[in-house]
Parts: sequence; structure tokens; C-alpha cells
Amino acid sequence: MRRRILIVGGDAAGMSAASTARRGLGDAADVIVFERGTVTSYSACGIPYWVGGEVADRDDLVVRTPDEHRANGIDVRTRHEVVAMDAVAKRVLVRSPAGEEWEAYDDLVLATGAEPIRPDIPGVDAGSVFGVQSLDDGARVLHALGDVPAPTCAVVIGSGYIGLEMAEALVRRGLRTTVVDRADQPMRTLDPEMGELVARAMTATGIRLLMGHAVDEIVTRDGRVAGVRAGAHEIPADLVVLGLGVRARSDVARSAGLPTGPADAILTEPSQRVTGHPHVWAGGDCASSRHRLFDRPVHIPLGTHANKQGWVIGRNLAGHDAEFDGVVGTAITRICSREIARTGLGEADARDEGHDVVAAVVEGATRAGYYPGVGSLTVKLVADRADRRGPGAPIVGGEGAALRLHTLAPGGWTGKTVDDLVMCDLAYAPPFSPVWDPVQTAGRVLLGRM
Amino acid sequence: MRRRILIVGGDAAGMSAASTARRGLGDAADVIVFERGTVTSYSACGIPYWVGGEVADRDDLVVRTPDEHRANGIDVRTRHEVVAMDAVAKRVLVRSPAGEEWEAYDDLVLATGAEPIRPDIPGVDAGSVFGVQSLDDGARVLHALGDVPAPTCAVVIGSGYIGLEMAEALVRRGLRTTVVDRADQPMRTLDPEMGELVARAMTATGIRLLMGHAVDEIVTRDGRVAGVRAGAHEIPADLVVLGLGVRARSDVARSAGLPTGPADAILTEPSQRVTGHPHVWAGGDCASSRHRLFDRPVHIPLGTHANKQGWVIGRNLAGHDAEFDGVVGTAITRICSREIARTGLGEADARDEGHDVVAAVVEGATRAGYYPGVGSLTVKLVADRADRRGPGAPIVGGEGAALRLHTLAPGGWTGKTVDDLVMCDLAYAPPFSPVWDPVQTAGRVLLGRM
Repeated sequence: MRRRILIVGGDAAGMSAASTARRGLGDAADVIVFERGTVTSYSACGIPYWVGGEVADRDDLVVRTPDEHRANGIDVRTRHEVVAMDAVAKRVLVRSPAGEEWEAYDDLVLATGAEPIRPDIPGVDAGSVFGVQSLDDGARVLHALGDVPAPTCAVVIGSGYIGLEMAEALVRRGLRTTVVDRADQPMRTLDPEMGELVARAMTATGIRLLMGHAVDEIVTRDGRVAGVRAGAHEIPADLVVLGLGVRARSDVARSAGLPTGPADAILTEPSQRVTGHPHVWAGGDCASSRHRLFDRPVHIPLGTHANKQGWVIGRNLAGHDAEFDGVVGTAITRICSREIARTGLGEADARDEGHDVVAAVVEGATRAGYYPGVGSLTVKLVADRADRRGPGAPIVGGEGAALRLHTLAPGGWTGKTVDDLVMCDLAYAPPFSPVWDPVQTAGRVLLGRM
Repeated sequence: MRRRILIVGGDAAGMSAASTARRGLGDAADVIVFERGTVTSYSACGIPYWVGGEVADRDDLVVRTPDEHRANGIDVRTRHEVVAMDAVAKRVLVRSPAGEEWEAYDDLVLATGAEPIRPDIPGVDAGSVFGVQSLDDGARVLHALGDVPAPTCAVVIGSGYIGLEMAEALVRRGLRTTVVDRADQPMRTLDPEMGELVARAMTATGIRLLMGHAVDEIVTRDGRVAGVRAGAHEIPADLVVLGLGVRARSDVARSAGLPTGPADAILTEPSQRVTGHPHVWAGGDCASSRHRLFDRPVHIPLGTHANKQGWVIGRNLAGHDAEFDGVVGTAITRICSREIARTGLGEADARDEGHDVVAAVVEGATRAGYYPGVGSLTVKLVADRADRRGPGAPIVGGEGAALRLHTLAPGGWTGKTVDDLVMCDLAYAPPFSPVWDPVQTAGRVLLGRM
């Protein structure tokens, strides 16, 4: 009998695994994908830009449709949801419009993604309270924006990346938008002085911030969202977006006895095999990753990890010996004309982890001072005092701030000393940087403090 | 007696050394700089943008004037040229408007820069044949552009970075401009398929290319430049720019018995001490650097190296133990709306060095495919087949192509394997890259070929 590879979930990790396995195995296996929705390989990261009108059409966010995958020899079955698994008998229960059926596998790939965290507060289940995870979520927000009378104000609960991107999108759409978060500043994973830069850019763009306040209730009137209550504040809102982060969608896996860790993420080995289950693989937002600096599993659900993990699974299914090396907490976004980038541990995180760290914050320029279009950026470098290696760096600034992180993200910084960083042969030309790249300037300041 | 530090040359390396030593030593030493011209700390890299009109004023290119340096306690003496040195008696002969005088030193820093290579052909000494090295050179070109009748056509001889930047500047100024080079393509340090992309961008911008032709003569008429003859071609030209690269300005050092290497560059140790001369230091365009991949001295005169080497000298003068770690051949520029970046060895270079290499050329996108403003870029990765490490990579493309090199330049790539590169935790967000960064996509293709 032909080898049977079943894949649960048709987005980044699942379809990367499917495509890579299919290419590597040729006709030696059946590759079947169960997708509970109707689309495959879409960019959830693009949803805020679609809502904000920068991306015109939902289809723009779809990299490859089910039919395109089918043309590549992958048996994609949409509206097929896996509702149970039996890891001993090696089979999964699939629910489709035609009914329920057990399907046997030789290898099973779990790529079920994540779902927005819904706070346990009154009103959270009202219409016009939106998560931002699937294209359908995006479509629902856009639909609400077209309501008559048109909504005029919105609240975003939480100030992670997606929350802030959505806040900016809603401001673009003309809504008075407030971000409410219990943290003291937006993007709590940044150190305070960097978060402050983000807050300033947001305020300048017209986003209202209500920090240091947990939301107690989503106020509804006649079944419709009317506002958000946080302590003594009540903020009017015609729609509410949940930006509190996500939780791995791993119920089926957990019920079958698979191990899970932080945020319910399925625990895997570097090969992306589920720990203790040699024929079950997991990747993408439903799986954990090893943090190289913490040296423990974390849940950092990002499209780039999902694609890499899917590729690793596909390579391994095809007989290679690939490993996902873990993450160092790298992330970038653009919020209100500022590029925001981070890698490794911030100063506060690093201290929490027991590092004795030194830090330097440097204001630099994105180009040579005389070159047209020069802007500012702020680099913070954090290094361990003892081994001079870098727990991390956030960068906030204008054009080029985000890609500058690429100096630091790859073993470059994490794994190299500040001394290495300062002397490393980075490129310079007036349109791209001052003659000392700001990350190297920060390194020099840091050296002086060690 | 106070320690006496003499520095020859008041641009990047010299003034970095002076400033760093002054800060580190306080009042423990006299720091005297002899500069044969009248300006200090200027950006030669900015000259093409000044000539092209993107930078309005010559003063914009001056980072710090002699008076500003003096206010920091550095004794800057302009119009003072060092014309001889006596390494045994530890003194230099200084020529100034007041005459010649021997000046004793405890430490001597040579930062005399480089000068444009002038080909040995008829007409090369005519007026309107310009090198591009000092601000005076830039002023002379601008002056020539103001001639009456206005010049209408120009030839750039050579197609290195500065030559091409000048060609673009001259086109901006409305001149019909031709680049003539004996190489088959512009930027001969790039591999052919990458040079071809540069050639295409230049042609699209209106620059004419005459490749594969050495210039035999600069044709003059009545003492004025009239054209350039290259084989059977005669190209009319009202002015000619030399873009054949530079040679270290090291006559004084060589006459004093100091060792020199490629392009007459003064040979130094990683401390920037001149080899065999413990109290003489050299940095910047007059000095050699160790190429980490060749493991031999090279002459790669760039402002970023000059600043770093000057800083290393200054730190060492102040009693630290700093080293310049060498270069890996990193360089970036923007030519005709294309960003061009390289690090390490190209495929041809690597083969010449005896590496058995595999290469992959990948066309990628600068942003997510659906994100507004997405452009294309081409990444070539070259890796050693045996140890899987990267000799190098050139990148040619739109916005973000150049800074993407920062993934590869720092120990990251050179020193890491392709496997490391593919899995490394690079940042992704739709405004900045596709979900697989193009350099990682190139890595995946390379893996498939190994």
C-alpha cells in the first residue's frame, strides 16, 4: 500500500509541509490535506493591510488556492475538519459535509494554527467583537465597516503587533480608535523607552491609548456593541477588535494525549516530530518552538516560523534530516510610519532570566546626515556583562530600521560578542546609513560601559 | 615632556584616531593633525550626490570642521603637508606656508588617503579630466558644469562604484554620459549575471555603456577635452571623469622604508600598527586590510573601514587593546534606482581562490507580493561545497536589497553554513519581505544543489 501522509490544516505550515513532501517523495506517497475552511496558503499577517485598504482584495492574500495545490499533486480537501485522533491506531476522525469518517495515516502533520484569546468578560460574544486570524475574520471586520449607519469608533483590546496594526487600519478607515491594554505601554515585549517611541508615533497618528487598564466589560445595547468599560472609563465603540494574542489550537491533539506546553502549543523536537510520537509532526501556530536564549519551549506564532517548520516537516517526511533550529524572538512590524524590530531578549526579560546585563540606547540616522530623506532611529543593545554576548536588541525608527535587525538576528549578534559586532564588515553608503551603522555605534557605547 | 602624537591626514581615519585618542588620553598627550588641504572629516562618498544636485552644499559633506576639532582639544594644522619621514629619529618633515620644519613624534599615525588612478594615456593631464577624491575635485566638476557654453556630454572611464555614481550624477545634470571600461560589464567585481542587472538599470536611466574597450586617448582640441578614443570608437566629451579606482597615497611612507602591499597600501597588523614599526600606525585608504576569506592583505578603500581603523588606532593610543578584524568585501551602493550589495567572494573570485563552489541565483520580492510598493531583487549565494560555508553573495534589487546584506555580512553568513542561514530567525512582516526572506530562499535552492 502507498504511504499515506495526512495533513491537518491548509495554511502556512501545513501547505509547506505538503508541498515539500510532495516534491521530495514524488509518487511514493499520497499527500492529503484536511482544511476546515475553504482557503489555503493565505497570509494572516496581511489582514490589517486589507482592512486598512492598502491591499485591495482578499484574493491578494491567497498565495496558492486549493486548485493550484491540487494541480501539484496534493489532495486538498476543504470543509474537512479533523475532530478527533487516535494516536495508537494511527487514524483521525474527519468531519465533512458528507459526514464523519476515520482516515488512517502513516504520518500525520498537525498544522491547526491558533485562535485569538477571548477574555472572559461580559459582552465578549457579541457581534462586532472580532478576532483577527482568518480571512473570514478580516471579511467580517470589513463587512462591519460597511454597516449603515457607518461605525464611527472602535476599540482594540490589547496592544500586540496585530492589535496595533489593526488600530492603524481602523484609523485609516476614519474611525476614532482607542487601544486599551493593562500594560503600561503598547508592545509590552519592548523595554519601556522603546515602547514609549511606539506610543508617541501612535498618538501622533491619531490613535488614542488607554494604558494600564484592563477591560472589564464589552458594553452592549440591544445586542450591539456600544462601548468598552475599563475601570472608571467607558469608551464608546461600534466595533471591538481582540488583540490579546493567540492560543494554539490543539484540543484534538491534547485529547489524544499529545504533550503541550506554553499557550497550549504542541511540544516538538527540532525535527518537528511531536515529542514521544515518531509518526506525528506539528508545525506553525499550533506548535511550540525552542527559544535559543531561554533554552526552553515557547509559543511565538509567526508566519515565518510556520513556513520554516512546514518545510522542515516536508523535508523529513521525504527522508532528509532537517531541523528547525529554534527562535531568538525576532519580530518586525511597521506601525504609524515607524519600523519596529526586535530580536533576542530585552533588558527587562534578560534580567528576569538572571542575566547581568548592560544596555545602551543610541539615537542614530537611517542615512548619511546630508542624504535626502534621512530619518532617525533608536537602537537599544543589551549584552551580558560576563560573556559580552547579546541577549538582544530592539530598534524603533524610520526607513531601514527593521531590516537593520538582520545584522543582529542571525547568529551575528546572539552568539557573537559586542566586540565582534562593532568591527564586523557591515556595508556603508550614504543612501543607507551613516558611516558607522547605528547598531555599531550602539555597540561602541556598550563597550564603553563594560 | 608630554607625549606627542602626530597624525598625518585630517579625514576619516586621521580624525577618528585623533578624536578617540584625545577622549581616551585627556591631557596626557598633544594630538596634532597635519592636513595638507583646508577641510577635515568630510564625506568623499557624498561627492557624487553633491555633483548630482541631491546634496545642496559642499559644507553638508563636512562632518566636523577644523575649528570644531580644535574646540575638542585637537591641534589641527591645515595647509600642512608631511613630505618626508625619518622612522629612526621618529620625526616628520612638514611643509606649510611658513616653510619646512621637522616635527618629532612619540607616535605617528599615517592617514594620508588614496588618489585616483590616472591611466598612462595621451590627454590625461588636460583640464576637465577629473578624479573624484577630495571636495576640491567635486568643486572642480561642478565648476566645469557651469562653463559657458555648458558642457553637453561626458565620459566616465572605468565602472567601479564611484564611476557609476558619477555617471548617474552627470545624467541628472543633463549631460549625455557614456561609461567606457575594458571589462565586459560594469562593476567587474560582481559576477556576470549580477553585473548584467546593473547594466540594464543604467541603460534604462539613459547612461550609455561601452564595455570591453580600453581607453586609448583623451582627445583634446585647443587644450580642451573634446572626446575619448577607445579602439575604433571616438566618443565626444566636454569633460571626463576617472573612475578607475584609487591607489594608496604612501610615497612618504615607502621612502621611509615602511612596508607596502597591494595598490601601494601600507601593511599593518590588526592593531593598525605598521608592520615592524611599533610607534607608527596607519589606517584608512592608505592602509591595507586583512581579507578574512583570502587571509591576505587587500586594499579596499572605504569610508567605513577608515572610520573603524581610525577608532582602533585611537583606542590603542589610549592604552586599550583594540583590533580591526579585517574585511570580507562588503559594499553597497545605489545606482539608477537599484540597490547593489555584495559581501564575501563572488563565484568567479571564489573559483580563482580554489574553492569548489555551488551557486544559486534567486529572484525574490522586497515585500510580501500583495503589499503596495513591492519590487524585485536578485540574490546570488555562493557557498563552498565541502564545508557549506559562504564565500559570498551579491544582491541587486529594489528597496531593502542593500540592507538585506546585513544578514550575510556579519559572521552570519561568512562563517556560518547555508544550513544555518536557511533556519536563522530573520524577521518577517509584509512591508519588509516575503515570508521567506529572499536570502533564505536562495539558501534553500543552494541546499538542493549540494
